[in-house]
Amino acid sequence: MTQPTLTRSWVASANGHTDFPLQNLPLGVFSVNGCAPRAGVAIGDSILDLHAAIDEFDGDARRAVEATAGGQLNAFFELGRGPRVALRERLLALLAEGSKLQVREAQVLHRATDCQMHVPARINDYTDFYVGIEHAQNVGKLFRPDNPLLPNYKYVPIGYHGRASTIRTSGTDVRRPKGQTLPAGQAEPTFGPCARLDYELELGVWIGQGNEMGDSIAIGDAAEHIAGFCLLNDWSARDIQAWEYQPLGPFLSKSFITTISPWVVTAEALEPFRTAQPARPAGDPQPLPYLLDPRDQAAGALDIELEVLLTTAAMREQNLPAFRLALSNSLHMYWTAAQLVAHHSVNGCQLQAGDLFGTGTLSGPQAGQFGSLLEMTEGGKKPVELPSGEVRKFLEDGDEIILRARCSREGFASIGFGECRGTVVAAR
Amino acid sequence: MTQPTLTRSWVASANGHTDFPLQNLPLGVFSVNGCAPRAGVAIGDSILDLHAAIDEFDGDARRAVEATAGGQLNAFFELGRGPRVALRERLLALLAEGSKLQVREAQVLHRATDCQMHVPARINDYTDFYVGIEHAQNVGKLFRPDNPLLPNYKYVPIGYHGRASTIRTSGTDVRRPKGQTLPAGQAEPTFGPCARLDYELELGVWIGQGNEMGDSIAIGDAAEHIAGFCLLNDWSARDIQAWEYQPLGPFLSKSFITTISPWVVTAEALEPFRTAQPARPAGDPQPLPYLLDPRDQAAGALDIELEVLLTTAAMREQNLPAFRLALSNSLHMYWTAAQLVAHHSVNGCQLQAGDLFGTGTLSGPQAGQFGSLLEMTEGGKKPVELPSGEVRKFLEDGDEIILRARCSREGFASIGFGECRGTVVAAR
Repeated sequence: MTQPTLTRSWVASANGHTDFPLQNLPLGVFSVNGCAPRAGVAIGDSILDLHAAIDEFDGDARRAVEATAGGQLNAFFELGRGPRVALRERLLALLAEGSKLQVREAQVLHRATDCQMHVPARINDYTDFYVGIEHAQNVGKLFRPDNPLLPNYKYVPIGYHGRASTIRTSGTDVRRPKGQTLPAGQAEPTFGPCARLDYELELGVWIGQGNEMGDSIAIGDAAEHIAGFCLLNDWSARDIQAWEYQPLGPFLSKSFITTISPWVVTAEALEPFRTAQPARPAGDPQPLPYLLDPRDQAAGALDIELEVLLTTAAMREQNLPAFRLALSNSLHMYWTAAQLVAHHSVNGCQLQAGDLFGTGTLSGPQAGQFGSLLEMTEGGKKPVELPSGEVRKFLEDGDEIILRARCSREGFASIGFGECRGTVVAAR
Repeated sequence: MTQPTLTRSWVASANGHTDFPLQNLPLGVFSVNGCAPRAGVAIGDSILDLHAAIDEFDGDARRAVEATAGGQLNAFFELGRGPRVALRERLLALLAEGSKLQVREAQVLHRATDCQMHVPARINDYTDFYVGIEHAQNVGKLFRPDNPLLPNYKYVPIGYHGRASTIRTSGTDVRRPKGQTLPAGQAEPTFGPCARLDYELELGVWIGQGNEMGDSIAIGDAAEHIAGFCLLNDWSARDIQAWEYQPLGPFLSKSFITTISPWVVTAEALEPFRTAQPARPAGDPQPLPYLLDPRDQAAGALDIELEVLLTTAAMREQNLPAFRLALSNSLHMYWTAAQLVAHHSVNGCQLQAGDLFGTGTLSGPQAGQFGSLLEMTEGGKKPVELPSGEVRKFLEDGDEIILRARCSREGFASIGFGECRGTVVAAR
């Protein structure tokens, strides 16, 4: 399926500069006027209410819409690629210029600014990976300057189980966590609000069809098990993390909140932006056979520009624009999303529709490309100077972090992910 | 509430040697004759069908039974202690000798052997702790003989997020996982079936009422948020674990299956077996204030005898009895269950009804008390000799591990947990 690049929508705002042109069509769950959450599709500045328009769908596309009933996309994800593609094709027709749906605009479209977005699926399990090799190297250098990557990094897509209960959508405030930290030079920990609060720029991967416990998803089939993508901010309490993480990994330093952008940008919408994997340099070991597939090697990587912006309370008072902290790209993933699926299930672990993966922080190698303050400030040693005259080593109360993502390619309509925002509020 | 020690049940099998006398009354979810899963209470060799007997309940006890509708105990857990105690008190009367319920026996009781047990709640998040200090020391000694415990151990109840999707009840086969391992002396990993498959003897803790994201559960309230306990086998692939776990902790080495005993032994049934915490020797640091509560210090520990048994295929052919690998006790927990709740939520992490905690392996300090083969065989160096003439360094296909737990105290009826079994089957 090629992208219908030249087709315009009767929704005027979808034809200008927008994250959500006709070529995107991400799915999400919204509520409006106090009604129960329901499924919708972002189009320009509007949201198409799928259930209000259900009579427009038949066959597999109808099955897809019906599976979104109940305000969670799990059953839709579980249907897999066929019905998802059928839904997309029908939506492309319905929202294209000339479609008779336009006469029903008042019934089926809502202004996005009138709507509240929700976590789009019941997330049974959330796994956070560590596939941003530049991030792994940047962080590793802080602790082991001569040997930043551990020996398993280029063989194992490193990941760990995360906390599902505290995943929230863009706009949810980030309460500064409290916890144990070990002050420098002390032998005993103290307890109090986190003093080294950080963000992490990640992509989220929504799992479509799952597997039974004991089975594995072969690398050649793995891409078919991915429903879509979102932005993910893996807020991190660096001081709590440093004290707690040995020997079993990060725990309370990450579980206070994880923020995602609410729209599921489908695998199909991202097809034009697939490319060969650039992050594995010649000389690196070949992936083991269970992670190796010619199609995945040729086109399993995603070219998505990723951006981190900051505003502080003082900047907002001075009407200063958001300050760009980083511009990076998902091409810094050392492993493809399909490799993550194959690896996660190779031991027989059951994946389920609506599981969410985080990629890990997607930094580039250079200044201006770092996906966390830990990297930007070299662990708090080099403060960032802001246009307001303020400096930041780590986040302060009132700071807002905004993640954005955008795909562009000559000859194709550019698509975006919508925003993933969060403002830090004081500890209780 | 004291235990009604002398009261006998009209269910004859509840009065002899059983895990489930009248004084226990654990809750679970069962199915029989192909019907939908529903809630029940274990009594002797039988299961009381709560919904078949619903007319016998009113007030808070009725609310409790109604909350178990749908074959999952989450809503019941969410009700908290009051309705749970009301249900227990009514059950004590209904199942005591002389109760008129006896005339309805055929309607309300099933033979447990006719029933299939299910995971009793929808587990949104599963967290595995590491509070067995003897286990931490035994394992630590294998790697750091002079310094087995890391500096944070006596301050932080160490834990990590586990995989919820592969938690199964007793009796589910354990498919040997495949994965990457680094053979001794090699620089590159290989891929294949786990060669160092192990069990871990743990308790499971079922969370009752949860908390909102951003709030914390104070240590003084934490015990009220625990609905009950079960046995938990944290099956572990030691060779996969050794290669994957740096820097983010165990992942695929644990996520292929976790087995639990299906009955939720309530906090109330365990009240007679509470005691002061013995595992924190004089001279150890005081817990930080958010983990310190006088009542919890005085009676927050549990005295539960824990047992691990093994049968091999050859032993079963020879009709040999199960071989006891270990006899341990939950008194080896360095942190109480209430301290785990307070710690887990102190950063604002949301706990939800039906969340499950594992305690971590509960070993004793001596031979015969080790809760894993890793400890018993010192990492595979000292094989265990079995009555069949076989030896084991780690588990082989056909091996069955059985966990049991029992509480006994002078003047009180002894109660048990039921079994937590699993048989290893060959890798696919």
